[in-house]
Amino acid sequence: MRIGIAKETSANESRVALTPENVARLSGSGATFAVESGAGLAAGFSDQDYRDAGAEINLSAEDIYRQSDILVRVNLSGQMLNTVSASLQSKQLLIGMMDPLAEPERFTTLAERGVSSIAMELIPRISRAQSMDVLSSMATIAGYKSVLLAASASQRIYPMMMTAAGNLSPARVFIMGAGVAGLQAAATAKRMGAVVEAYDVRPAAREQIISVGAKPIELELDANTAEDQGGYAQEQGEAFLQRQRELMADVLSQQDIVITTAAIPGAKSPVLITADMVRQMKRGAVIVDLASERGGNCELTQYGKVIVAEGVTIIGPDNITSTVAHHASQMYGNNIENLLNHILDDQGRHALDFDDEIIQESVVTHAGDILNNRIREKLNLLLLGRESLLKEVA
Amino acid sequence: MRIGIAKETSANESRVALTPENVARLSGSGATFAVESGAGLAAGFSDQDYRDAGAEINLSAEDIYRQSDILVRVNLSGQMLNTVSASLQSKQLLIGMMDPLAEPERFTTLAERGVSSIAMELIPRISRAQSMDVLSSMATIAGYKSVLLAASASQRIYPMMMTAAGNLSPARVFIMGAGVAGLQAAATAKRMGAVVEAYDVRPAAREQIISVGAKPIELELDANTAEDQGGYAQEQGEAFLQRQRELMADVLSQQDIVITTAAIPGAKSPVLITADMVRQMKRGAVIVDLASERGGNCELTQYGKVIVAEGVTIIGPDNITSTVAHHASQMYGNNIENLLNHILDDQGRHALDFDDEIIQESVVTHAGDILNNRIREKLNLLLLGRESLLKEVA
Repeated sequence: MRIGIAKETSANESRVALTPENVARLSGSGATFAVESGAGLAAGFSDQDYRDAGAEINLSAEDIYRQSDILVRVNLSGQMLNTVSASLQSKQLLIGMMDPLAEPERFTTLAERGVSSIAMELIPRISRAQSMDVLSSMATIAGYKSVLLAASASQRIYPMMMTAAGNLSPARVFIMGAGVAGLQAAATAKRMGAVVEAYDVRPAAREQIISVGAKPIELELDANTAEDQGGYAQEQGEAFLQRQRELMADVLSQQDIVITTAAIPGAKSPVLITADMVRQMKRGAVIVDLASERGGNCELTQYGKVIVAEGVTIIGPDNITSTVAHHASQMYGNNIENLLNHILDDQGRHALDFDDEIIQESVVTHAGDILNNRIREKLNLLLLGRESLLKEVA
Repeated sequence: MRIGIAKETSANESRVALTPENVARLSGSGATFAVESGAGLAAGFSDQDYRDAGAEINLSAEDIYRQSDILVRVNLSGQMLNTVSASLQSKQLLIGMMDPLAEPERFTTLAERGVSSIAMELIPRISRAQSMDVLSSMATIAGYKSVLLAASASQRIYPMMMTAAGNLSPARVFIMGAGVAGLQAAATAKRMGAVVEAYDVRPAAREQIISVGAKPIELELDANTAEDQGGYAQEQGEAFLQRQRELMADVLSQQDIVITTAAIPGAKSPVLITADMVRQMKRGAVIVDLASERGGNCELTQYGKVIVAEGVTIIGPDNITSTVAHHASQMYGNNIENLLNHILDDQGRHALDFDDEIIQESVVTHAGDILNNRIREKLNLLLLGRESLLKEVA
């Protein structure tokens, strides 16, 4: 069993799919590793580190793609998946973050070429798969870093300070969405001395918000069905969101820092902060919008940009986890290592067991087909749409 | 007594010399205030805030400079002091940070025009002047922010994390120089969960390092005379610094984040980290050089720039305190308010009492002369130098 670690091909991707430590541990199970030269460099891992861990480092990218039984990557979002698909062939297994619910037609080439693929984002949120849950591990990093980005852009310091030059009041930080990223953001801001409040539509989040030392904000909203079985926030109706926005405007006007984390996998992010609400905020306030990749939770957010509107700095980070490449790679690498341990047998061979819920939900393509039901559905809708469009045109 | 708050004229200066809160409190003592429109905006204080505090806001900059009995500024370093000097005249009092020990000839115009001036940096470090000590208050802000800059540039997170995806070890942070900035940096990094060590040539710093939760690093060096009467680090001989560098190289090679704070007022900063020591550091390590304005504690530091050398990111911040403009202005404003309360009498008149140590040490020009001894000495050396140069040429 040969596992290839390819260099990431996105300009702003500094993470690597497996660290030298992961390689050293996995080598014991009979697998061999080929690492593209420089693959770990931006995350603080040298070629020599991989060599010391037992990996081969001299193969060309082309050979790694051609000769690996399993190819691991971090970032396969957008058109990168198509590019990689073209270099792979039957029976190879591709593992990475593929943004699987966006543009499902990207998987057709992989399927046609007979390549098996596991989209890490589809690993189910069940307890025995927690150690492979990249959405949680990357959200941990994103939540931490969002607080730093906010602090760096703020005119204020987080902690209260009592000095000879008088007392400074602590910054007021408000976290919207208390999932993994939100709770980590709340914990980090709290640790730094800020006054932290948080809001989530799911009633269950209340306890979690309190557990990290923050104060839960409650709005008078009906939120019975806000959490789905997988623990994710569900998409809410527009009337609900409208009411939420009204009550929220007042809360927002008191904050120095706001961090929004309400991203919904595969769907456009709900607008929680309208342009009008930004106008009512304090001059010098800072918003970090962790949902910026899919439109953002703030109406004014621009993905990948820092803008100032009405005196409020709005940050729409682009691949925030990649900016903490070393630790993010350690966590991602551990996620991948745990998955590999799950699918490799004692002799280092892999077989995908489709009776296993983890495999069932995370495998997208296998043996010439798109197996994943969520992606098939999306793809069917898309094809139906095209057909009716063709009919109209004809 | 009319006090003018001028808009700062440096492009990267966001602070303001007095906040609306300071204005409101001082107005009680009989002083009136004229604020240049927009003076507080970048620090989060609007014209309306100043109006509400009782200040006049409609005067032109020219009128404010001409009509104020006391003009307060934040930043009067470099050639800004000359520009301001030209707008002032006899009996007016100028207060601000003037970088007084650099280029002392900048004070000749102020003296010739009969303007009185107080350089805030010269306020003596005695306990009754603590509340006016801008070097301490700004160092507090700089120390805090340096840790954020470092964290934002680091591939690592500060705290240890124990997650389903494995444990992340905490970042190792090393602080060089345990003055106000260094101690604040150590406290902030500690609060964020890092493993923090600190070093200072002054034996007295040991206790202070421990008091903020950091571990003091000791090198076998003779440092009997490292602290002067004012509590500042003294300039050290080259032999001492060389030995210090040798012992330090090993300590540095273990760090993820290094923050250097060894600035000496009016003098070039000592090089604590040579290019060779940078080469021995970890790939991905980050240095924030708070002494960058006068050459830096790291040989490779470029003032106002972020560079990557040998895989180490080296940040040479330019006016770091200004980036936390709101809180920095609150502290600076309180420093100025305390000084004004010290020199204004019940009727809001001011008189400079030269029997008072605070006035004696901080006033630079008065009644047509440069009174301050440290600046006179520097100026005399400079004039002597020119004379001998002229003789050589002749």
